[in-house]
Amino acid sequence: MGQLDRISTPDDVRRLTSRQADDLAAEIRTFLVDQVSRTGGHLGPNLGVVELTIAMHRVFESPLDTLVFDTGHQAYVHKLLTGRRDFSQLRSKGGLSGYPSRAESEHDVVENSHASTALSWADGIAKANELQGRGDRHVVAVIGDGALTGGMAWEALNNIAAGQDRRLVIVVNDNGRSYAPTIGGLAHHLDTLRTTQGYENVLSWGKRTLRRSGAPGRATYEALHGMKKGIKDVLAPQGMFEDLGIKYVGPVDGHDVRAVEKALRNAKAFGGPVIVHVITEKGRGYVPAEQDVADRFHAVGKIHPETGLPVAPSRFEWTSVFADELVRIGRRRPDVVAVTAAMLQPVGLAPFAAEFPARVFDVGIAEQHAATSAAGMAFGGLHPVVAVYATFLNRAFDQVLMDVALHKAGVTFVLDRAGLTGSDGASHNGMWDMAMLAVVPGLRLAAPRDEETLRDALRTAVDVDDAPTVVRYPKGALVDPVPAIDHLDGVDVLARHDGPADAQHVLVVGYGAMAPTALETADILAAHGLRVTVVDPRWVMPVSAALTKLVGDHDHVVTIEDGVVDGGLGSLVAQRAREAGIGTPVHAVGIPRAFLDHATREQLVTELRLSAGDIARDTLAALGRPS
Amino acid sequence: MGQLDRISTPDDVRRLTSRQADDLAAEIRTFLVDQVSRTGGHLGPNLGVVELTIAMHRVFESPLDTLVFDTGHQAYVHKLLTGRRDFSQLRSKGGLSGYPSRAESEHDVVENSHASTALSWADGIAKANELQGRGDRHVVAVIGDGALTGGMAWEALNNIAAGQDRRLVIVVNDNGRSYAPTIGGLAHHLDTLRTTQGYENVLSWGKRTLRRSGAPGRATYEALHGMKKGIKDVLAPQGMFEDLGIKYVGPVDGHDVRAVEKALRNAKAFGGPVIVHVITEKGRGYVPAEQDVADRFHAVGKIHPETGLPVAPSRFEWTSVFADELVRIGRRRPDVVAVTAAMLQPVGLAPFAAEFPARVFDVGIAEQHAATSAAGMAFGGLHPVVAVYATFLNRAFDQVLMDVALHKAGVTFVLDRAGLTGSDGASHNGMWDMAMLAVVPGLRLAAPRDEETLRDALRTAVDVDDAPTVVRYPKGALVDPVPAIDHLDGVDVLARHDGPADAQHVLVVGYGAMAPTALETADILAAHGLRVTVVDPRWVMPVSAALTKLVGDHDHVVTIEDGVVDGGLGSLVAQRAREAGIGTPVHAVGIPRAFLDHATREQLVTELRLSAGDIARDTLAALGRPS
Repeated sequence: MGQLDRISTPDDVRRLTSRQADDLAAEIRTFLVDQVSRTGGHLGPNLGVVELTIAMHRVFESPLDTLVFDTGHQAYVHKLLTGRRDFSQLRSKGGLSGYPSRAESEHDVVENSHASTALSWADGIAKANELQGRGDRHVVAVIGDGALTGGMAWEALNNIAAGQDRRLVIVVNDNGRSYAPTIGGLAHHLDTLRTTQGYENVLSWGKRTLRRSGAPGRATYEALHGMKKGIKDVLAPQGMFEDLGIKYVGPVDGHDVRAVEKALRNAKAFGGPVIVHVITEKGRGYVPAEQDVADRFHAVGKIHPETGLPVAPSRFEWTSVFADELVRIGRRRPDVVAVTAAMLQPVGLAPFAAEFPARVFDVGIAEQHAATSAAGMAFGGLHPVVAVYATFLNRAFDQVLMDVALHKAGVTFVLDRAGLTGSDGASHNGMWDMAMLAVVPGLRLAAPRDEETLRDALRTAVDVDDAPTVVRYPKGALVDPVPAIDHLDGVDVLARHDGPADAQHVLVVGYGAMAPTALETADILAAHGLRVTVVDPRWVMPVSAALTKLVGDHDHVVTIEDGVVDGGLGSLVAQRAREAGIGTPVHAVGIPRAFLDHATREQLVTELRLSAGDIARDTLAALGRPS
Repeated sequence: MGQLDRISTPDDVRRLTSRQADDLAAEIRTFLVDQVSRTGGHLGPNLGVVELTIAMHRVFESPLDTLVFDTGHQAYVHKLLTGRRDFSQLRSKGGLSGYPSRAESEHDVVENSHASTALSWADGIAKANELQGRGDRHVVAVIGDGALTGGMAWEALNNIAAGQDRRLVIVVNDNGRSYAPTIGGLAHHLDTLRTTQGYENVLSWGKRTLRRSGAPGRATYEALHGMKKGIKDVLAPQGMFEDLGIKYVGPVDGHDVRAVEKALRNAKAFGGPVIVHVITEKGRGYVPAEQDVADRFHAVGKIHPETGLPVAPSRFEWTSVFADELVRIGRRRPDVVAVTAAMLQPVGLAPFAAEFPARVFDVGIAEQHAATSAAGMAFGGLHPVVAVYATFLNRAFDQVLMDVALHKAGVTFVLDRAGLTGSDGASHNGMWDMAMLAVVPGLRLAAPRDEETLRDALRTAVDVDDAPTVVRYPKGALVDPVPAIDHLDGVDVLARHDGPADAQHVLVVGYGAMAPTALETADILAAHGLRVTVVDPRWVMPVSAALTKLVGDHDHVVTIEDGVVDGGLGSLVAQRAREAGIGTPVHAVGIPRAFLDHATREQLVTELRLSAGDIARDTLAALGRPS
């Protein structure tokens, strides 16, 4: 019986000897490779934090102490140590979430998988602890070096420094990369700190056990620290974290359980905010991951565990089309540049970067800066293409509105993984972009339905130099081409079903991933004797006069979209129609205002009644016809 | 003839002798006090940057070099030096904007008055300069110490550090406060840097004139700098900016034109990113401002120039009611805490802070952290009330959605200056909040119409512990009480106009500042023989079943709101009605998707056809009746 089989609560982890803890780490690593290669998931990040997570649970007592994981995809080990062993349905409906989940465990706190939030959560929890008489409890936040480039993290550091009496430990999990090699001033500084490894040994400061109680522990720490600092000035540069007023401990070898434990115990004894700088290796211990320098198996689909090669290739065909078309555009347009928020590979910018290395800017996990610096570049005569996952553009709403749109900047936003994404759960579904962007004056948004319309949308978007443009497309495999049979002032007609002249005439509007659903819906309606026109506006926002006119030419309209229905295309079409004095009822079908649990896209479509069968049934009911 | 009269372009500023430049500063200060006391505007910030702005225009050549002002309310002096002398209509329709304006001048770049954006703009412009063969031109960004606490600024600093060959000068305008005394680690660090003033003199480094050309100038700088740094380690703490990789020059007396010029020339000669740390005094030279320690006349209405007392008092009565009610709530609810993003006074939290100093948290200009740390506090058992201007909540959309709402955190957001605000121009109108928040699952939003409904909304909001709540109210004076004559499941009936039994029955829905408009509209419709019901849902989101039912009980619905009409209440009501199988037409009246130029609220209401007369006319037309 291995160590892992003995672990059902963090208490069990604390009871292990150091040697047993090492064995546990090895077992967990094997477990993760074996399990995640079957289900898909975030393999690399979790292989990097095995020893760190064990040490955290040995030093702190969750849930009395609070452990917060930034971008919770690094929480698999934490799940194992808190009694969750069944990874067989990881990220599948009914199985374990790929992120922390309060519904799963009292040890989970933050479910949001958007980066850079952990320090703000920790600051808030520490403030609450202080005010509610739990000031002796610790809050421990684990954040990657990449996530520290996010503005929220800075805002939090500034506030954490202001609370010198709060027991807050920031574990910087530094693997020298976020999703990819990290650039910028912070990365440089962390590098500098890393290269000073070893000066701790001069003082053997870390070997002393500091007392855990409040003031005396702190006084001891300060005395030692003062001494250390004197020498450190000679040996190593002082750190910006200490300039900010947060104690710095490290760097520590993140794959040495004892070393991490020691650093965490010192930090715990201090009684105020401390940064523990832990050096880890993403994908540690898994040869295929260690050899993948660019990405270290950040997130994988199902893979062969031996080789690391995917079981089902070509998961991201939309991304590939974008990648290819942008290179073509780049060749004829030297003013076109690309911007990524630390996701050069996942959003498909690698080919562009290979051909035009000076024209691609990785800004770190910093969507706000991505948007506003793009506005600046547009002011300077460039046309930036900012490529992000749809859900992450939420971070830059104010900047898209107030920097890009207000200044009429020609910036193109490319939103990958728009609409339902499924297995990553609530915070990864790209379902908010349409409603959020619908209020932005001047903004034009395209939702292409296949390869050709994606290429066309991109070409059109980069030609707009006086407004933001957005091109959004889904995650996953491309659909077969969906040809138009006619064009009406920019609106593609995808199908016309003639019926009896006296039959009601229904307009079905579908775009992007929902265009095929619109066609299927129309087939069913036609089979029930209705006349049906299927159109795809392609450029969804603003609503075109041609589309509004089409509404007036029909008796009933159904709009189908994979975004939040409130504020989406359906509501815009209805509003424009009313303003034009058109009374045709518009039946808007989309995603309700809700957070969706992880499941496959198909399962979500069924649950949300977004299948053609359900939409047709509801439409027939609205028209008073039997289905 | 004074110096100011000789200035029509920056060339004129460059031609002045140092003594003449000093005279110009004095004249400008007198001009500002005189003019801004008549029109209202941002007096304190502009009095603080008189010498700085003069020095900038003497060292750099706008518009070939690009000057970017963060939160453009500090750009009045820049306006004067670039030929804009007529301040008589400042912030009035047709007059000068209170912020930079590209329509006014080729010297203006950034119109967005939300804080912390300047460094991102500068980074983008510098990147464009580099790629387009203008790498010898400089970009100069002026940013306050307060704005540096915003996450965007950090994201930008990290990226600026990565561009060591770009000519970018960051002027940190450090007045030791943002809108109010700034707290946190950064403020502490800036303080430390300030107290080291004088060590520059040891080296007399600043007296040397560095060559302006690229590489040699840089080499010279590096040599000198290396020497200086050696001594600085002894004399003064190293700075976090240099740890990040950005050269630091300062601190410099911001009210000494020569000293600022010297520092800027050194920075210009370096040829890479440099921070120039300038110490200024907000309200400098105006006694009433200098004596107002808390706020230094950040923004004023019309005032008596001698005393600084307002001509028209009580401009912010809604804020006062909130301030009062929150103190009452605080007395009986020890778990209620308040959060502000560097605007303790303007949002009305000063009384709460005075009574409960341990329960108020000023997080800096950091709306993202405000929201997410509030989610953390709610997790820890507190009920945070986050008070911000409505337009600034845009910055925290992702955090409201993914941290507060996803985690069902009981956090109350209080949005001051919601709806049309007018004179501050496009980026201050609080018109985006409703549509933006409409997609947030679980969120409940109240828009009280008078003092009593505001107090009631706050009391209700702080009792909700499993979802975000929002209370929004307008800028300005309270309206007279608007009593309800009936209550229908939470919907207030404000008026009923009986008419002929066969007359069409119109439902007019108005909330918040638009409730009186709804009543007036109804009066006009009733006078035209219609039956009319006027209701205010008070809790606007989600749309209540009672309101949806009311829609079904009427022949025609008019919704009136002071937010963007797309995605607002009207579109939500229409969607809910359609989902309930109700066919009553809903005519949604609100603000179109557009940026609004500065004007009074009344002028905007007229332009946008949001007056009762216009709404009634449009409604009668829709009903096919003469008006």
